[in-house]
Order: sequence, then structure tokens, then C-alpha cells
Amino acid sequence: MAQINICEVGTRDGFQIEAEFIPTEYKIEVVNRLSETGVPEIEVTSFVHPKAIPQLRDAEEVMSKIVRRPGTVYSALVPNDKGAKRAIDAGVDRLHTVLSASNSHNLANVNMTVAESLEKLQAVAQVAHEANIPMHGGISTALGCPFEGEVPLTQVESIVARLVDMGFEAVGIADTTGMANPAQVKRTFEYLIPKFPNIGFTLHTHNTRAMAIPNILAAMDCGVTDFDASVGGLGGCPYAPGATGNVCSEDLVHCLHEMGHETGIDLDALIDTSKRVEEIVGYSLPGQVMKAGKSERRYQVPHHVSERLAAI
Amino acid sequence: MAQINICEVGTRDGFQIEAEFIPTEYKIEVVNRLSETGVPEIEVTSFVHPKAIPQLRDAEEVMSKIVRRPGTVYSALVPNDKGAKRAIDAGVDRLHTVLSASNSHNLANVNMTVAESLEKLQAVAQVAHEANIPMHGGISTALGCPFEGEVPLTQVESIVARLVDMGFEAVGIADTTGMANPAQVKRTFEYLIPKFPNIGFTLHTHNTRAMAIPNILAAMDCGVTDFDASVGGLGGCPYAPGATGNVCSEDLVHCLHEMGHETGIDLDALIDTSKRVEEIVGYSLPGQVMKAGKSERRYQVPHHVSERLAAI
Repeated sequence: MAQINICEVGTRDGFQIEAEFIPTEYKIEVVNRLSETGVPEIEVTSFVHPKAIPQLRDAEEVMSKIVRRPGTVYSALVPNDKGAKRAIDAGVDRLHTVLSASNSHNLANVNMTVAESLEKLQAVAQVAHEANIPMHGGISTALGCPFEGEVPLTQVESIVARLVDMGFEAVGIADTTGMANPAQVKRTFEYLIPKFPNIGFTLHTHNTRAMAIPNILAAMDCGVTDFDASVGGLGGCPYAPGATGNVCSEDLVHCLHEMGHETGIDLDALIDTSKRVEEIVGYSLPGQVMKAGKSERRYQVPHHVSERLAAI
Repeated sequence: MAQINICEVGTRDGFQIEAEFIPTEYKIEVVNRLSETGVPEIEVTSFVHPKAIPQLRDAEEVMSKIVRRPGTVYSALVPNDKGAKRAIDAGVDRLHTVLSASNSHNLANVNMTVAESLEKLQAVAQVAHEANIPMHGGISTALGCPFEGEVPLTQVESIVARLVDMGFEAVGIADTTGMANPAQVKRTFEYLIPKFPNIGFTLHTHNTRAMAIPNILAAMDCGVTDFDASVGGLGGCPYAPGATGNVCSEDLVHCLHEMGHETGIDLDALIDTSKRVEEIVGYSLPGQVMKAGKSERRYQVPHHVSERLAAI
């Protein structure tokens, strides 16, 4: 049985693609509720340019008004050194960055080649180093690109090497559009982990094709213990309308707890938070445990059955 | 890499709980489409009393009008010897029976104790034996009962022993309300398989709590190769409104194919069938690959990206 660490990304990866701006007070409420569940890390928001992602234009205000639970890590996504400075000024505990493993996706996403993004990250690393703030580097499309298909492991490896050189303490392998399967996840981590024994690997999954939890369990078989997840399964996939988002936090935590693993998370509080997020966004989220209840849920035996049971 | 055998149960486990009667011609069309996908077994219908499950009152007509593909096994669920005779007269290749591992669920489901159901199955076995028709015995709530909770493995074991004595060639371990987790599935099969080396075990899953595919992969780790699945994820759970049904056939087949396993199924044809079933039932099914496309789906690179890529 393992201690598994969840990084909750719903208020960033989820809220950033909502059609409507989520009011700042609701974002703060959700972060506070998530803190109270005991989740060890929350990717609160993103310090991108307000015009690039207007849904998260209130990053500073959210960071300044949340109630910080001792022990919880409050991280944020930053696109460049300017964003890194804003995030650090706002009191973020850990910087998250992202670049794609494939040039086409990186260009489509941030209008830079992978090489150009790596230069930007060097500047972020400089800022983080001066402020003594740890960094986590996510690699999008590391398990498949919607434009290019399979991304060679050597290409991912060379990006990991660059991130390690820059001083990143952890690297996130991201299945950005939910293309990965469990056998591939296993091959990927079996390849990468021995090459970089001194950094932590995390896995960022999307449940686009119903393989998120299987992929997480496959990564756990390789010793990975850190996973991103999104409350209620918030989020989605810009390339696949109707597809689900990140792996649902409470469905994942429920599965892990049922299997005997520990997360330090109060699952009931997380399910309640998910129901509150559903009210806030105003539509049904993909989370299943919030609808069905936990496996331990019991139903009342029908009256005629009770009578028969008593007679056995 | 393994050869995995799917038994498609959508036209039985799915259509039986539809609020509206699915017209017979549509049922026949769906079975015919499923046959053409190459799925090795289809649980076509159920030979229960028409008053008990009016949705499947057309069992004989469906069986008589489907186009039987050579090599496909056409099975049906039968509740008792009378149903077994009807099924055999209708040309069914294999009889499926079901009883629950827990008395409360069996009473709620069929108004009999487990002991009473086992007697009924003895009569079914007699009919099947005389007609030389193979039998598959499903055990509901074998991985958890919504009334009683955990069901002792010894209780499941004693039912399996009875089924083996009656001449059943295969036993289905059913997670009837989606309570099971992968660790439990592994423990269950590690316990049962060595005790009954001469019968085949199958796993029947519900994705109520997002653990169906993880549970199937756990069973595969124990050597189980036969799984029930339902096109589009048809079905549901009478105890959990809003919960999903059986594991979705095409999502499962997609995952297995991506992992390098073989099913003999034409996945594109199965996805097309799922879309047709969605038209027939008139609402969105839980299947995700039918919405997102297969992992191999590629997207057009945006124009500005093509230009940049060409310049690298």
C-alpha cells in the first residue's frame, strides 16, 4: 500500500476553459474547500496574460484571499519569467510550467517552438532560483500529440534532461488529450525513471478515452506516486467536444482508498466540494462517485426481503 | 499480449432496463450489427416471463430473425427450466443463468433465497444437459452487495462449487452495482482460480464508480480472459440513478487494442454500432471513444502552425 499525493488542478485546468468567467469569490471558496479536504497540493490558478486566458485574470486576487492551510502547497502555472515574478509576489509556493513535447502542439498552444519554450523556461528557472521557489515542469503531449501522433521517448527524454539541468525538482508527464494507454504509460516510466533517478515524476491524465485511472494504476506499478486530478472531472479537451476532462479527483481518491492506499484526503469533503463545483459551473460534471456514492454505501433492504431473511 | 474474449450484453442487460420498449426490428438490427463486428459472443436476450421483464418479451422473435454469423455464440439469460426450454427451442447456443451471492439481493431480485435459486438452477442444468447445451453461471453481488456489503469469499466459493457440480462450464463473477476495486478483484481471482482449475472464470463489471476497466485489467493480471461488456455502456444501476451501466464495449476494446491485446473485434464497426444504439435509445450513452474518437485520431495542424513548422 502506498502513500499517493494528489495535486488538485481543477481551479486551473478546469476553470480556465469554462465558457463563463467563474466569479472570484467562488474560486476562493473552491480552493478553501479543497484545502479543507487535506489535498497536499492545489494548482490554484495561472499567471498568464489576462488577455490570453481571461477566465483566470483574477490570479492575484484569488491567491491573496484564500485561507492557507498549513502544510498545503499552493502552486500556480506560469508561462514565462514575468508570470513567475507575479506568482512569487502573490505568494505561490511552487511554480508549475508547461511546454509540449511536440513542436506542432507547442506552436498551437503557445506559438513557440519547443526550443523557444525551453529558453523561456530558462528565464523562469532564473527567477525561481533567485527566490528559492521549487519548480515543477509539465511536458504536454509526452504520451501522444493530436497532430503528430506518437512522440518518440527520446524526444521526451531530451526535454526532461533540459528541465533537470535548469533545476526543476519534478517533471510532469502529461497525457494532454487522453491518448495514452496503460501499457504505454508503463513503457514510458520504465524508460525514464532509471535515466533520471534524482527527480520526481508525476503523471497528468485526461480521461478522454476512459483510460485515466488505468493509466494512473500503471504508473503506480512503476513507482510513481504523484498525480494531477481535477475535482468532479472538471475540464475537457479542446480537440474533442463532449470529451471528459482531467481524471476526476474524487473518483481517483475513492479507487485508491478502496484499494488500501492513502492520500491524506477526506473523501466525503472532496465529494461535497465536487457537488458545490457542479452548482457553480451549472452543469453535470463527469465524476461518478458523486452520483453513485462510495462503494461502502448501503441500501435499505425492501420490506418483503426483510421478512424472508428473518425466516431463513 | 493476450487474446481477450468479449461477451456483448447490451441487448440484454442494457435493453432490459430501458423505460421504453425497444422495437423488435431495432433489437434484431443491433444484434446483426454486433455480429458483424466479430464479437465472439452476444447475450442476445432473456427468456424470462414477459410480465417480469416486458422489455424483452420478444425473445423468441429476436432469436428467430437475427442473421447468425458462423462462429459467433448467441447466448441468452434464462431464469429457470421453463426459460431454458424456451431458449433451447429458440436456438440459443449457450445458456446464461444468474443468482446472487447474497440472500438479500437474491430475494430482492428474484424473490428466492440463494438455496432456492440453486435448486432452480439444478433444473436448468438438467434441461441443458439433455439438450447438450453449455451453461454459464453468473454470480451477482460476488464482489459486494448493496444491502449487505462485503460478501465473504467462502460464500462465493461454495456457490461456484455447486455450479461446477451441476456441470456449468464457466462461472461469471459479477460486480453487479460497481462496488469492486482492482485490489479486491485480484484477491478474488487469486483465491478462486486455483480452487477450480477446470472451469473458466469471466468477469461482469459495472462502471458505476469508474473502476470497470481497472477491474478488468486486474482480472487479466490473474489470467482471466473473458469479460462481459455493453455497447455504448448501455444499462445502468437501479440502486444509483444517474450512474453508468456495464463497462462500455468499445471503450474496453479500444483500451485493449491500444495495449496490444487482441479481441477479434472490428472496433470501427463497434463504434458505429454504438452510435446507432444511441439513436435508437434516444439519449447520450456513457461511451467515451464514440465521442472523442480513437487515440489514433489526428487533427489538422492550424495554418499558422504549418508555416512555422515549415521554417524550423
